[in-house]
Amino acid sequence: MPSQLSSFMCIPRAISVQPSTDPNSSKSGRAGRIDHLTKIPRSVNMEKLQSGYLFPEIFMREAEYAQRNPQARLIRLGIGDTTEPIPNIITSAMAKQALALSTKQGYRGYGAEQGNRELKRAIAETLYHGMQVKENEVFVSDGAQCDISRVQILLDASLSVAVQDPTFPAYIDSSVIVGRAGKLQAETGMYKKIVYMKCEPENDFFPDLTTTPKTDVIFFCSPNNPTGSAASWQQLKQLVEFAKANGSMIIYDSAYSAYISDESPRSIFEIPGAKEVAIEISSFSKFAGFTGVRLGWTVVPEELLYANGYPIIRDYNRIVCTCFNGASNIVQAGGLACLSPEGFQALKTSIGYYMENAKVLVDTFESLGLKVHGGKNSPYAWVHFPGCSSWDVFNHILERAAIVTIPGVGFGPGGEEYIRVSAFGHRESVLEASRRLRKFL
Amino acid sequence: MPSQLSSFMCIPRAISVQPSTDPNSSKSGRAGRIDHLTKIPRSVNMEKLQSGYLFPEIFMREAEYAQRNPQARLIRLGIGDTTEPIPNIITSAMAKQALALSTKQGYRGYGAEQGNRELKRAIAETLYHGMQVKENEVFVSDGAQCDISRVQILLDASLSVAVQDPTFPAYIDSSVIVGRAGKLQAETGMYKKIVYMKCEPENDFFPDLTTTPKTDVIFFCSPNNPTGSAASWQQLKQLVEFAKANGSMIIYDSAYSAYISDESPRSIFEIPGAKEVAIEISSFSKFAGFTGVRLGWTVVPEELLYANGYPIIRDYNRIVCTCFNGASNIVQAGGLACLSPEGFQALKTSIGYYMENAKVLVDTFESLGLKVHGGKNSPYAWVHFPGCSSWDVFNHILERAAIVTIPGVGFGPGGEEYIRVSAFGHRESVLEASRRLRKFL
Repeated sequence: MPSQLSSFMCIPRAISVQPSTDPNSSKSGRAGRIDHLTKIPRSVNMEKLQSGYLFPEIFMREAEYAQRNPQARLIRLGIGDTTEPIPNIITSAMAKQALALSTKQGYRGYGAEQGNRELKRAIAETLYHGMQVKENEVFVSDGAQCDISRVQILLDASLSVAVQDPTFPAYIDSSVIVGRAGKLQAETGMYKKIVYMKCEPENDFFPDLTTTPKTDVIFFCSPNNPTGSAASWQQLKQLVEFAKANGSMIIYDSAYSAYISDESPRSIFEIPGAKEVAIEISSFSKFAGFTGVRLGWTVVPEELLYANGYPIIRDYNRIVCTCFNGASNIVQAGGLACLSPEGFQALKTSIGYYMENAKVLVDTFESLGLKVHGGKNSPYAWVHFPGCSSWDVFNHILERAAIVTIPGVGFGPGGEEYIRVSAFGHRESVLEASRRLRKFL
Repeated sequence: MPSQLSSFMCIPRAISVQPSTDPNSSKSGRAGRIDHLTKIPRSVNMEKLQSGYLFPEIFMREAEYAQRNPQARLIRLGIGDTTEPIPNIITSAMAKQALALSTKQGYRGYGAEQGNRELKRAIAETLYHGMQVKENEVFVSDGAQCDISRVQILLDASLSVAVQDPTFPAYIDSSVIVGRAGKLQAETGMYKKIVYMKCEPENDFFPDLTTTPKTDVIFFCSPNNPTGSAASWQQLKQLVEFAKANGSMIIYDSAYSAYISDESPRSIFEIPGAKEVAIEISSFSKFAGFTGVRLGWTVVPEELLYANGYPIIRDYNRIVCTCFNGASNIVQAGGLACLSPEGFQALKTSIGYYMENAKVLVDTFESLGLKVHGGKNSPYAWVHFPGCSSWDVFNHILERAAIVTIPGVGFGPGGEEYIRVSAFGHRESVLEASRRLRKFL
């Protein structure tokens, strides 16, 4: 439907800005006078990493724009960063815990590496109610991104991996770092040993499993970042059956589950039999505005076994005890407050606020004749610009409207022609963004 | 000097309790009815991990003792866990930061993955004064143990590693997990591919570098955990020269540097040229009682280069951005308060308190005719029981005196015949421990 896009002119390729800060672009990357070289070879895995990590790259472009346009009032709808104050009932609990550390009675040193028991129990009972998730299967952490890496080092480097395409970059980047990805193929932008499961409107953003090659590990994020699509119960049932038939393990990321507004499952463990094939990584970041506070968790079911019958939970416990030392006790007190009836209710209000933002953004892009996905079960709108490079669209919106978005291709080749727009932001910024988009796009 | 040990009877080997909870001890480790096995092979690296991780193992023995002896007033001088309240100036800063997150002006989401600039600067200026450590070379983290793992995944799995023997177990265990250790040799308790640099009274707890094989990486902890020995300036100069001559990289752990009471360097960067061969991992845990609060940092100098000239700091930055997401903003506010003049002064008082405890313990063991190391530049006393198994000594002291220590062999074969006794604890507990030891040992 290019005719509907008359007001948006794709920037000619000649002036399109490609990622500029690839640390691999210079063979050695040296600078200045060199007095000594170690004899340490650079990791063959690190050498395979593609360009800069997406978010720092966007941040650099944003900074560069701001420098060129000091008067511009930049609106950030790029990185999915929460913006609204955390309910006082939660921060008070953290403040109280912090102050208690100054008292003889209240001081605590090391906690259990796996997390405080009370919090583990609250997560199991509140967020996995009726799913038979046990307290000891919950490992509290400092965030989902960190847990993704811990799961990567848990697993043998020889394992094969599948990811949704597009997908949150950390699954692929961490796979590269542990040596599981193979070479980056310049022509496709894909790593040779990774299976990319295309998720697009044509397949309802759920991969065609009849044609998906078998892999050892399947990363699956629902509601998906970036497409905003939440898999249905039937789809997840298919996924679990697919994993079971292939002997695969699903690493399910439910970091956005609190945004689900329909009947879509909020956890993979709503699916019968999922405990035998899946672990679930999740987070307080988007649920409670804890992006800077740092708290997450991973559920590793006792029923999940290696081929030799050894329980994966035992190895994961060992990783947590060796490579991690527990989440901050102050922050864990905040997590517990989030799961109290009052805290939970207050957070629903914050989530509702962001979802109203999402509606404003979806309506705006739709009014411009663009097809918008997401924004219903997730705080992200996934906007299609047929025929356009997503970095061009990103640059165009930044230059014309002073709005930061995320180019879809940053989430994988399947994200080309799309941008991701975040509904996190103050209402007045989102409304102003809507006005600018209607004016300039 | 066995004659001086008349009151301590080594428990006969026959009844000595060896680590009992080795998760590898059963081939499969299965339990209960199995409905499904994945086809995922267990990681060859995880399979090589030796028995349980030391500290959870000790915790289990302690719990088992407490169950058998419900009346016993257990004194914990095992795990090096801080016990004294954190100065109010520090917890107030964290409480204030927590509460600010409930305000529109004070709310912050994601911070820089590398840490807040103000804190990085304070670390560089306060703790590395005069050492030319730049703010951007400081990476704030959730603790030293986590950073050790991040450094491990940064480096190529093929690299060879040397560690002090005895040493903090995380260096070896994380080396095993990333596949750098080779097989465990049952007869020696050593991993085949790891070089163990013996540190004992005979060499002033500093390895004989003329006979130490060249390795790519050298883990070095000073003041050492567990021996309590701080390397001198001359010794560290030798170490830096050794690394430079071999093209090696030193991973220097200075987590206990705040306990140094003499002229020993508090950082490897006090040694000229160290920035070309070393990174330094450190922590607020023992310095500020942050064991449960979680805050640490790693310094990666710009001058440290791979063999091809590529700066290691760039890859480390990438690891931090991909596998970590920054330390908690609340906790970082506490870190900043620790480095304020008032916070720093208050912490000196806490450290002095623990060091008085250390003196009590050193005096106690010496009065029993035992040779005691450490306790002068570190909160650990390293006590020698010639001819005895360290697990036997551990068990004996637990059973007779209801005091938890750490068996030296848990820190490597070089720790056999020793126990580590921690000076963290309330004064009354330490005095009571002293009374019991004098009575029962």
